[in-house]
Amino acid sequence: MCRLHLALIVAVVVQLTWNRVGAGSIWPKIQFTAHNPVDKSLDNGQTIVLQSVVINDGQGYDPNTGIFTCPFSGLYMFTLQHCVDREKYSHVGIVKDNTMLVAGVAYGTTWWPCSSMQAFVSLSKGEKVWSKANWESYLHHDAARWTSLSGVLLRPDELVTLQST
Amino acid sequence: MCRLHLALIVAVVVQLTWNRVGAGSIWPKIQFTAHNPVDKSLDNGQTIVLQSVVINDGQGYDPNTGIFTCPFSGLYMFTLQHCVDREKYSHVGIVKDNTMLVAGVAYGTTWWPCSSMQAFVSLSKGEKVWSKANWESYLHHDAARWTSLSGVLLRPDELVTLQST
Amino acid sequence: MCRLHLALIVAVVVQLTWNRVGAGSIWPKIQFTAHNPVDKSLDNGQTIVLQSVVINDGQGYDPNTGIFTCPFSGLYMFTLQHCVDREKYSHVGIVKDNTMLVAGVAYGTTWWPCSSMQAFVSLSKGEKVWSKANWESYLHHDAARWTSLSGVLLRPDELVTLQST
Repeated sequence: MCRLHLALIVAVVVQLTWNRVGAGSIWPKIQFTAHNPVDKSLDNGQTIVLQSVVINDGQGYDPNTGIFTCPFSGLYMFTLQHCVDREKYSHVGIVKDNTMLVAGVAYGTTWWPCSSMQAFVSLSKGEKVWSKANWESYLHHDAARWTSLSGVLLRPDELVTLQST
Repeated sequence: MCRLHLALIVAVVVQLTWNRVGAGSIWPKIQFTAHNPVDKSLDNGQTIVLQSVVINDGQGYDPNTGIFTCPFSGLYMFTLQHCVDREKYSHVGIVKDNTMLVAGVAYGTTWWPCSSMQAFVSLSKGEKVWSKANWESYLHHDAARWTSLSGVLLRPDELVTLQST
Repeated sequence: MCRLHLALIVAVVVQLTWNRVGAGSIWPKIQFTAHNPVDKSLDNGQTIVLQSVVINDGQGYDPNTGIFTCPFSGLYMFTLQHCVDREKYSHVGIVKDNTMLVAGVAYGTTWWPCSSMQAFVSLSKGEKVWSKANWESYLHHDAARWTSLSGVLLRPDELVTLQST
């Protein structure tokens, strides 16, 4: 009898501990921000390769290609800021496996202004997101004008507990 | 005695299972993106009806009215991109039950540029959010310039575990 | 024997209750939106003090200083919309403890348009985020043009359950 009671007590203690540290999957921290495009004069369809990585939690973004490869299925948000040359324009967008998620345009008038756009999208592990030109585009980048792409995991697909950081 | 022990063992097993599949409420995936306004020349106060639905997880957005009705209480983010006609302007904003959450303006200069704005807002189930003109506005929409509205649930109000998708 | 059984039953009931109300840390609701800059003509480096608070869940934002002090470690998103005077420019950005997170520019042409930018950043409790001018800037603010700063907690660092609201 005593052994059975002991077993039950152990089961309850194990369970309490297990609940504390988290069961099942985790909610990983996935975010990246990169800026400073390699090419600033872009043809229609050309990928915008942001070469300077500010942060890359989860290592999804590749600064050599400009492509984010989803490391964990879930709902993501992306934001692209494009700054443009004086008296020029930029026609750019964010795509998932080459399907447009959002597209926008900036015009330089007599200055070098910036515009931003956002996309929300469900991604499966391995799917790819990047920014590209939709027509000829003349980007600008300096300390006061960041042409930049960011992404973040907003909600994982699976039952999760958060991963301690 | 044996029946009592059996009952205790069953209780522990049930509890372990219940914890794994998730107790209490769920974190539903709620997001929408719609673009392509029905009317592009808008009067002051007119709702921007984005007729082309890209995604509508949670079925909160109605493309016939342009109105998002909150299906699950929580903290939401919305983003509106408005592109504007050449040599025209747009004065638009995002409202919750007709109270302004954010308002902004784009000007067309000698091109058709875009601007975006964001709003964070706590919504109770049934509350409504939409985009509207704050003054006369001349919107533009084409493949490279999406006039679009998106929304996403960032954090549910209730204790939750995620809903598997 | 009966007392031991009673103790086990109590342990299971306590545990079930404890799991329902949430173990460990909480996921607090942290968001703020403030608009209407105190100064609209800004020198290089000057903080943009948004004096009108729309919402301040978590009390992180101080409208007297324009500074958000992180009340709970985690991954945050910020968004800054800046509207600009006619025929003038604004050069502004979002900083964490005076390190630039994102920077952008708007130009007024012959109208008073707006532009927005976003930043994602991991913050430890007590770290500070604010918006500032990167060069001389002429901001505009009226009912149709909100110069505004918002922030939201996207993901806490610690294992959490949500805090009921």
